[in-house]
Amino acid sequence: MTFAQIDYTVADAIATITLNRPDQGNAFTQVMRRELVDALDLVDADDDVRAVILTGSGKHFCVGADLSGNTGDQPFAYRGEGQSDTRSVPDTINGVPRDGGGVVTLRLAAMRTPTIAAINGAAVGVGATMTLPMDIRIAADSSRFGLVFARRGIMPEAASNWFLPRVVGIAQAMEWVVTGRIFPAEEALAGGLVSRVVPRDDLLDVARALAAEIRDSTSSVSIAVARQMLWSSLSEPSPWWAHERESLIMRDLKGGPDAAEGVASFMEKRSPSFPARVSTDYPEHAPTWPERPDHLQIQAATD
Amino acid sequence: MTFAQIDYTVADAIATITLNRPDQGNAFTQVMRRELVDALDLVDADDDVRAVILTGSGKHFCVGADLSGNTGDQPFAYRGEGQSDTRSVPDTINGVPRDGGGVVTLRLAAMRTPTIAAINGAAVGVGATMTLPMDIRIAADSSRFGLVFARRGIMPEAASNWFLPRVVGIAQAMEWVVTGRIFPAEEALAGGLVSRVVPRDDLLDVARALAAEIRDSTSSVSIAVARQMLWSSLSEPSPWWAHERESLIMRDLKGGPDAAEGVASFMEKRSPSFPARVSTDYPEHAPTWPERPDHLQIQAATD
Amino acid sequence: MTFAQIDYTVADAIATITLNRPDQGNAFTQVMRRELVDALDLVDADDDVRAVILTGSGKHFCVGADLSGNTGDQPFAYRGEGQSDTRSVPDTINGVPRDGGGVVTLRLAAMRTPTIAAINGAAVGVGATMTLPMDIRIAADSSRFGLVFARRGIMPEAASNWFLPRVVGIAQAMEWVVTGRIFPAEEALAGGLVSRVVPRDDLLDVARALAAEIRDSTSSVSIAVARQMLWSSLSEPSPWWAHERESLIMRDLKGGPDAAEGVASFMEKRSPSFPARVSTDYPEHAPTWPERPDHLQIQAATD
Repeated sequence: MTFAQIDYTVADAIATITLNRPDQGNAFTQVMRRELVDALDLVDADDDVRAVILTGSGKHFCVGADLSGNTGDQPFAYRGEGQSDTRSVPDTINGVPRDGGGVVTLRLAAMRTPTIAAINGAAVGVGATMTLPMDIRIAADSSRFGLVFARRGIMPEAASNWFLPRVVGIAQAMEWVVTGRIFPAEEALAGGLVSRVVPRDDLLDVARALAAEIRDSTSSVSIAVARQMLWSSLSEPSPWWAHERESLIMRDLKGGPDAAEGVASFMEKRSPSFPARVSTDYPEHAPTWPERPDHLQIQAATD
Repeated sequence: MTFAQIDYTVADAIATITLNRPDQGNAFTQVMRRELVDALDLVDADDDVRAVILTGSGKHFCVGADLSGNTGDQPFAYRGEGQSDTRSVPDTINGVPRDGGGVVTLRLAAMRTPTIAAINGAAVGVGATMTLPMDIRIAADSSRFGLVFARRGIMPEAASNWFLPRVVGIAQAMEWVVTGRIFPAEEALAGGLVSRVVPRDDLLDVARALAAEIRDSTSSVSIAVARQMLWSSLSEPSPWWAHERESLIMRDLKGGPDAAEGVASFMEKRSPSFPARVSTDYPEHAPTWPERPDHLQIQAATD
Repeated sequence: MTFAQIDYTVADAIATITLNRPDQGNAFTQVMRRELVDALDLVDADDDVRAVILTGSGKHFCVGADLSGNTGDQPFAYRGEGQSDTRSVPDTINGVPRDGGGVVTLRLAAMRTPTIAAINGAAVGVGATMTLPMDIRIAADSSRFGLVFARRGIMPEAASNWFLPRVVGIAQAMEWVVTGRIFPAEEALAGGLVSRVVPRDDLLDVARALAAEIRDSTSSVSIAVARQMLWSSLSEPSPWWAHERESLIMRDLKGGPDAAEGVASFMEKRSPSFPARVSTDYPEHAPTWPERPDHLQIQAATD
């Protein structure tokens, strides 16, 4: 598969997706949206990819939606449902064009492979919100952030109304959204939007070291289940839900090959070599998140 | 409209509500409750008010519920439902007197205008909990806080059982509530209850600068929608809810006058001048939060 | 009641439960699970116990599930439902063995007595997750933590998929779970997993001082209600739920003996002496959390 606006590489079982419109600050387009989803589908389809890093080429991570009109696409010319070239994400729901950022974040949320955002510069608008469902976000000291939607006469998107208050808390979310101000990496760190700020030149090395740590020490099935369980449980009102699900899944996992290897490698004080594969060994009772609730399905007013 | 226990002013499109019982530490009464709701109704009814600051006169912000019996009101003499002088908030539900703090916080939660708490001194009991649904909380370095309910033989109110764990996290909420201790501004800052601590003499200037930044750079419709969407989405289990709502609302906003001005002002590197007004341009599909769930309606035991 | 793998003492109205397998790092067993639940039942059954401290004997708090096979129990030999020796917690649900950590955390979540974790050393796996529903977590500077499940080929348990993202936020939860790494006390503090780090030798003194502060200054009924209301409200989508519940409960509390003593002691600037008792004065409308939702009840696949 070839891409026009992103770069996709795999090395040492770690995939790297690079937003690749450096002259436009990697501004987000509908082409980029489709390519991101396609690349994430590639990642999840390959058991041998153990982590994926998302970063940007050049000075910026992503300066937001492309407002220039020169995007290689018609930004609001969504295709009809059923005509999409992406398996998992139709472009419209009952005739209503889907917010493009949300198409990406819902795909990211559904990942079975762990995801790391390496934010190399400005992450503004959808450039910030697209990272919210990712597992780890680290940033270059030169990066800056902005949830600038109210300054553009629109509002937060990419399902960030849902993700942002869960990631950084409603108080921090509200302050950043209501002012719409640009803020530096250190404020993103203090507010919980990123977990680490590193020198720009070290950013990819740090991201790769995190990915390698995951690859070398964890079970891919464990990670896939845990990602899904943490988000699913956050969506459920009762801890009983988690407890009953965990009891069912743990019965399967404890009888499986990775638990045996986990105990053996721990007892023998050696690195583990986990045999299970997500494509064949994902437990029967593990959830698939986020499923679209039955009652949602936009009842679209025609336009 | 004239007020007995608060002061209400508007200048430069910024409203300031000042709790005004300085000799009683601005202790909360039922008169104050009604006046706060009335003042917030005034704010939201006026498109030309772009932000509201809540502060206290004198040394304290609000030392809690007035326990003296000299409140200008009979604290527990609620009027019957249907006899209320406030449009939006009946005093009882099926005959059960409504907690007074909760009447205020539910009104604050429903605001379409952004709200800033400028906490000038002690904020204890309802003095702390009344600020929880506000968008930004800043505090004087001389302020102190206390969720002292367990030390008074009662329990947290003002819907703070709902708001507090969402604003500061359940761990911090539980520790402050279970000990009931008084804590200084710095601990409030570290725990996420306020986002900034400033010298007492600078407090109102900082609050006004924040309000002016919002007024001068953001769309009032964007803010109104974003406030409602962030809280609504926090109440919904699925990010699909946010995504479908955002897709619907964004279609309206992107076709509206503020999005055009947002793009134009950004491209022209000038301050925006947004034409839309909340009273006439609030999008059809934007939520109204918090609606009372149908199943609630207290089935009151008679007393 | 005598215990084999824990120690249980009460002094000055403060109970202390000590995990007591120091030669095995207090590794968690099914015996320990049953004894913890029994001890917590004892605490809640005694109005004169005003707080409970959970700590470990020796160098570690709890190094995780015992993997040795020498546990004084058969780890996976659950007894049939109805044969349990614990009142509140059956060992299976529809024939599915319940995750042992979850049995403990759901019991902790249901406590009416405030709970303090004094983490004296390594808290790994279930050693970390068992503390999540507790009210206050403090740690020795020598402690370390690990949500190591993915490194053992299993996944987070003890209902931690539900508790962890609520206690520390989903971003921090995901990073710790996906890497599975061991981290020091300072990182646990920065990430909100513990609220205080103290020298090892001071740990129990600090925990006892916190317990004594609660005992000496708060109403036990207030605490019991507040614990239940904070967790319940966190599980409810609408602040209206909290408001209506608070209105009902507050009517009862304000008419009760502890509110009168709370006001009187405050006015007289003296320590309170609250007369109400949880066993007899728990308000009628206060919630019982966490109740198992009707729709859950595992539909067990046979094994």
